[in-house]
Amino acid sequence: MLHQLAIDAGGTSTRAMVLTSDGTCLGIGRGGRGNPVSDGAENAAAAIATAVAGAIAAAAVDAATIGALTLAMAGGLAFASSDWLDGPLGALGLTPRATVEPDLLAMFCSGSPSLQGYGLVAGTGATAVRVEDGAMAAMADGLGWLLGDSGSGFWIGHQVVRAVAADLDGRGPATSLTPRLLAQLEIARDGARIENRPSELTGLIRAVYGASPLRLATFAPLVFHDPDDDVSSNIVDTAVEHLARAVLDVADPALPGPLVIGGGVGAQPRIRDGLVARVSVAGVNGPVIAVEDGLVGAAVLGLRSAGSEVDPHVFTRLQESTRRARA
Amino acid sequence: MLHQLAIDAGGTSTRAMVLTSDGTCLGIGRGGRGNPVSDGAENAAAAIATAVAGAIAAAAVDAATIGALTLAMAGGLAFASSDWLDGPLGALGLTPRATVEPDLLAMFCSGSPSLQGYGLVAGTGATAVRVEDGAMAAMADGLGWLLGDSGSGFWIGHQVVRAVAADLDGRGPATSLTPRLLAQLEIARDGARIENRPSELTGLIRAVYGASPLRLATFAPLVFHDPDDDVSSNIVDTAVEHLARAVLDVADPALPGPLVIGGGVGAQPRIRDGLVARVSVAGVNGPVIAVEDGLVGAAVLGLRSAGSEVDPHVFTRLQESTRRARA
Repeated sequence: MLHQLAIDAGGTSTRAMVLTSDGTCLGIGRGGRGNPVSDGAENAAAAIATAVAGAIAAAAVDAATIGALTLAMAGGLAFASSDWLDGPLGALGLTPRATVEPDLLAMFCSGSPSLQGYGLVAGTGATAVRVEDGAMAAMADGLGWLLGDSGSGFWIGHQVVRAVAADLDGRGPATSLTPRLLAQLEIARDGARIENRPSELTGLIRAVYGASPLRLATFAPLVFHDPDDDVSSNIVDTAVEHLARAVLDVADPALPGPLVIGGGVGAQPRIRDGLVARVSVAGVNGPVIAVEDGLVGAAVLGLRSAGSEVDPHVFTRLQESTRRARA
Repeated sequence: MLHQLAIDAGGTSTRAMVLTSDGTCLGIGRGGRGNPVSDGAENAAAAIATAVAGAIAAAAVDAATIGALTLAMAGGLAFASSDWLDGPLGALGLTPRATVEPDLLAMFCSGSPSLQGYGLVAGTGATAVRVEDGAMAAMADGLGWLLGDSGSGFWIGHQVVRAVAADLDGRGPATSLTPRLLAQLEIARDGARIENRPSELTGLIRAVYGASPLRLATFAPLVFHDPDDDVSSNIVDTAVEHLARAVLDVADPALPGPLVIGGGVGAQPRIRDGLVARVSVAGVNGPVIAVEDGLVGAAVLGLRSAGSEVDPHVFTRLQESTRRARA
C-alpha cells in the first residue's frame, strides 16, 4: 500500500493527514465539527470530507493511491460501522472503508509509541484512560457535565460563576474573578441595587441563564489569570485533585507507562505541574507528555492495523513530519 | 369593602381565596402554573383566572362585592404592574387591580403574623429572607440551579445522580440510592458491559442527558428513604448545612423572630430538625413553622394593605378558616 489516511474528528474541529507506510506525514487538511453523535452524521461526514480533501491536496497524491483510512472519534459505538462516511469519501475517489478508533486512544498514541500507559483528556469534559496492549483497558469519569467531568473546563467555569455570584451576593470571599468575569460578559459595575441585590448580580443571572449551560466552560481560562487570588487558586487546586484522582483510579502499579495529557485545561502549566506532582508518587511512572490532538495517534493506529510496528524511530519521524506539515 | 381576593401564583400551581375583611376565608379555587416570568403572561393569567373563578364559586359571592386583589408571585419586577391580568380578571366581573407582592414574603406571612423574622423556601430552588417591618429586608441565595440554590431539591437530586454514577463506575462508595434511582428510571440491572462500563451507567447517562437538567430535582426524595445509607445521609447533612448557612447569612441577632419554612425539601422532617438545631444556637429565635404555600400570607398582605391590623386573633381565624376551605 502506498498511502494511508488518518482522521481525528472532534466536536470542535477535524484534522486529516495523508501519510506513507513508513510513517511520514505528507500533508494535512482541516474541517469543522466532525462528531456524528453531537453534530449529526451528515454534517460530520461533510466536515470530515473537507479535511480529507484538504489533506489529499496538500500531499499532492492521487486518491487512488490511498489504501487504508483510520478515523478517531468519540462515542463511536453507534457509528462504528462507517457507512455514513462512504458517500462523501467515495465522491473524493477513496475506496477503502474507514476503521473507527476511540479518540481517547488516539490522543494517547499522539504522545507515545508505548503500548501501555495512561491518557487524560481535560477539555470541556474530563476522562482518564488506561491503555494495555495498545487498546483501551479502563476509563474513569468522562460522564459529562451533569454526572461527572470533575476538574474539566465546564467544571472550572461553573465554579467561577458560582464564586463570582457568592462574591456579588456578599456571601463568599472577594475575588479578582469578579471584575474579570463581569468584563467578559460586558456587565457594567454601577453599584445600583435591584430587589435587595446588586445590579451586577442580576446581570450575571440573566447572562448565565440566557445561554447554554455548556457555555460556562468558556469562563475556565479566567481562573489562570491571577495566581495571587485565593479563590482562583482553590479552584485550580481542586480541579487538579479531581483530575489526578481520575488518573489514579485507572492506574495499575504493575503497568508502568507514560501519562499523555490533552485538552485546553490539560495544556495549562499549573494543571500539568500539579498532576505531575500527584501522579508520579503513586505509580504512574514514565514522562508526562502534552499533546495538541489525536491526529498523530490516528496515524499510529492506522500503521499498526496495517501490520507495521511503530517503533520510537517511526514515531519520531511521524511526529516531526506532522509538525512540519502543520506549520 | 365587603370581600377581598388573595392569590398565590406559583411555578407549579396557583391558589386563590375569597375572604372577608375580618379575615375569614370563604372559599378557595385552584389553577395551573401561574408565573408570568416562567410560563408567559398569557398562560399565567389564564391559570390565575381559573383559580379566581373557582374561589368565587366556592365562596358563593358576587364578583362585584370584591374590593381588593393581592397577588403573591416570584420575580415580580417586570410584572409588578398587573396590566397583563386586567383582561382575564375583568371578564370575571372583577374591577379592582391586583397589588403584586413577593412570594417569599407571602410564604413568611403564611406562617406568622409577626412583622419581623425569617423565611426559608427550599423546593426546587432555595432562598432565605429576612423580614423587617412587614417587608423583605434581605435575601440569600435563590440564584437558580447553575449559580446557587445550594441545598435545594435540584441540588439534592444532582448529588444523587452524581453519587449513583460514581457508584456504578466503581469510583465512589456503594449506596442504596443506586437501585432506587435505576428502578425509578426503569433501567435494568443486567450486569453487561458496554465500552469498559456497566450497561446501567450507559443507561443513566442516556436518561440524564435526555431530559431537562431541572428534572434532576425529581430525584431529591430518594435521599430520604434510607437513613442507614451513608451516602444519602451525607447529602442530607450537607443540604442542611447550605440551607442553614443561607438563613444565618440573613439573620440579625438584633431582630429576633420566627423561622417560617416552605417547599418540598423544607417539609422533610430530617431537614427541618437539622435546621432547628443549627439556627437556634445562632440567634434566630422564635419557633420554626412549616407552611404549605403562600396563600394565607397573600391574604395577610391584602388585609394589611387595606389598613387592617392582622393580630394573632385575626391570623388564627384566617389560618383555620383556610384549613377548612382546603379540606
